[in-house]
Amino acid sequence: MRVGVIGATGAVGRELVEVLGKRRFPVGKLRLLASTRSAGTTLPTPWGDTTIEAFTPEAARGLDLALLAVSGDFAKAHARALAAQGVAVVDNSSALRLDADVPLVVPEVNADAIGAHRLVANPNCTTAILVVALEPLRRAFGLKRVIVSSYQAASGAGAEGMAELERETRRVLLEGGPAGHEVFAHPLPFNVIPHIDAFQPNGYTREEMKVAWESRKIMGMPDLLISCTAVRIPTFRVHAEAVTIETERPVTPEAARAVLAAAAGVKVVDDVANRVYPMPLTATGQDDVEVGRIRANPVFGDCGLDLFLCGDQLLKGAALNAVQIAERMRL
Amino acid sequence: MRVGVIGATGAVGRELVEVLGKRRFPVGKLRLLASTRSAGTTLPTPWGDTTIEAFTPEAARGLDLALLAVSGDFAKAHARALAAQGVAVVDNSSALRLDADVPLVVPEVNADAIGAHRLVANPNCTTAILVVALEPLRRAFGLKRVIVSSYQAASGAGAEGMAELERETRRVLLEGGPAGHEVFAHPLPFNVIPHIDAFQPNGYTREEMKVAWESRKIMGMPDLLISCTAVRIPTFRVHAEAVTIETERPVTPEAARAVLAAAAGVKVVDDVANRVYPMPLTATGQDDVEVGRIRANPVFGDCGLDLFLCGDQLLKGAALNAVQIAERMRL
Repeated sequence: MRVGVIGATGAVGRELVEVLGKRRFPVGKLRLLASTRSAGTTLPTPWGDTTIEAFTPEAARGLDLALLAVSGDFAKAHARALAAQGVAVVDNSSALRLDADVPLVVPEVNADAIGAHRLVANPNCTTAILVVALEPLRRAFGLKRVIVSSYQAASGAGAEGMAELERETRRVLLEGGPAGHEVFAHPLPFNVIPHIDAFQPNGYTREEMKVAWESRKIMGMPDLLISCTAVRIPTFRVHAEAVTIETERPVTPEAARAVLAAAAGVKVVDDVANRVYPMPLTATGQDDVEVGRIRANPVFGDCGLDLFLCGDQLLKGAALNAVQIAERMRL
Repeated sequence: MRVGVIGATGAVGRELVEVLGKRRFPVGKLRLLASTRSAGTTLPTPWGDTTIEAFTPEAARGLDLALLAVSGDFAKAHARALAAQGVAVVDNSSALRLDADVPLVVPEVNADAIGAHRLVANPNCTTAILVVALEPLRRAFGLKRVIVSSYQAASGAGAEGMAELERETRRVLLEGGPAGHEVFAHPLPFNVIPHIDAFQPNGYTREEMKVAWESRKIMGMPDLLISCTAVRIPTFRVHAEAVTIETERPVTPEAARAVLAAAAGVKVVDDVANRVYPMPLTATGQDDVEVGRIRANPVFGDCGLDLFLCGDQLLKGAALNAVQIAERMRL
């Protein structure tokens, strides 16, 4: 199969190549495409050194599968045309996620939505990590309210974000100077920034609204009461989430733990007596979303439950989920 | 007035001396007391260089006011005896906070509770920062449910915690080695640890339960539905909190902003169009609790409100509040 990674030099693009290799995706020929700026560079891949080509619609025409790790503007300009030419397209941008004719998929939740579609959207990273844990709870206990506070890593702003965190942390510790910032709205080292993506008229950021909009679409619950506070913190590539839910039917931590232990894509990491709970330190590079700190939240009587999640933003939050979608498409 | 800072070498102890100076507290003679290990060391203070004395009950007897920045065990052993001898005592530990005969005070909320008491407890840092923002909203709109996720700084674990964060972050960046840990349960650099203080049978940590128990006592709402997820993150001395509340009566962001703008101890920092919101970067060293990201949370219909808070853990979360209590005691 001719597989193209478009946006191959970014943090997600690089991870896509890794994940295709690790999952032994049936790649006949891998092609890496990116902007003209990156074209000509050679990258090592599980299928040998590969030279990056400049993306043009013509260059992409011969692909069977295109994994897009590019901007929303790029996706708007090219994703539908590629799909119309018969290329199976998985788009990692937010541009098409809410379009009625584009399935938005986390395979553990709604793989059936893929059907014969040629264009499938990959959700927001915080959302993908969240719904993997929410869906089994929804099926078992129903879901009425969801309140999320996120602890999001620099990788959500791409390779440049991770580089800025490292470089500016060094500046603070070695030079004793104030940290600079270009990628983030403010300096990130030893700081938290409650601002990811653009502010909306309702006071929420787009990142926060994506969690609401996309969770509703993926779980098929258009009226779900859900809110998020999305916060950037100085970690590299794992998003953590503190989640409070109100279920429709009574829930206990034991019952929730049993349901989550049986769920695909989830690893229950919840042995507090031995200091075992989800952390970026342990979730980095892991496919499964770590779920722990499972406890009854009395704020919602016997229907309240608290969870703490950690998921690798570049894996389940991006590249892994995209490849899992591709695995279910008719290729 | 003869004022003693007991536990003078810790992060809170040092900050107490600073705050007494900055607020021009009527100190006639300042005495610094600590363990025998620290005795004999001389520290600069606003009242000149002062040599630390070893604490004994006899040594403390001549004080008019004792500010305790020591362990709960120490407070249990000595606080009541000191108060019985006529010394006004403000205790920063958690040992006596829930005792019925000991007022637990955040002056902006319940200064009246001090009365003629000789022993007053200073609340948990996360709680103090929280109730300064909650109380004016409670008075204006009533309070039904409160859900908090915290982003807590290393300073909550004292000077050793701050030193460990700095030292181990250097180790990661300079030596490329894994971070170590002694103060924290796991390495803190570029990590988050959803574990502060000991786990309780209900699955919450003591830190999380302190927020519930102490907020109820300070605001005089024994039945308030309130929960917290307390998370340590790699910042130095400001605690941030994502707070979702359900009010008794309808609330709007505009009305909430007006109420908070008029509240003592609060600084509304909420101009998202200009990227202005609470952050550790701006709240460090500030007396007021920064409150921003004020928005309607539709999860609770027209009674839902979201806030984001940042407060200096060593100031309003500890030393500042203790001195503010002392200012209201009958000395």
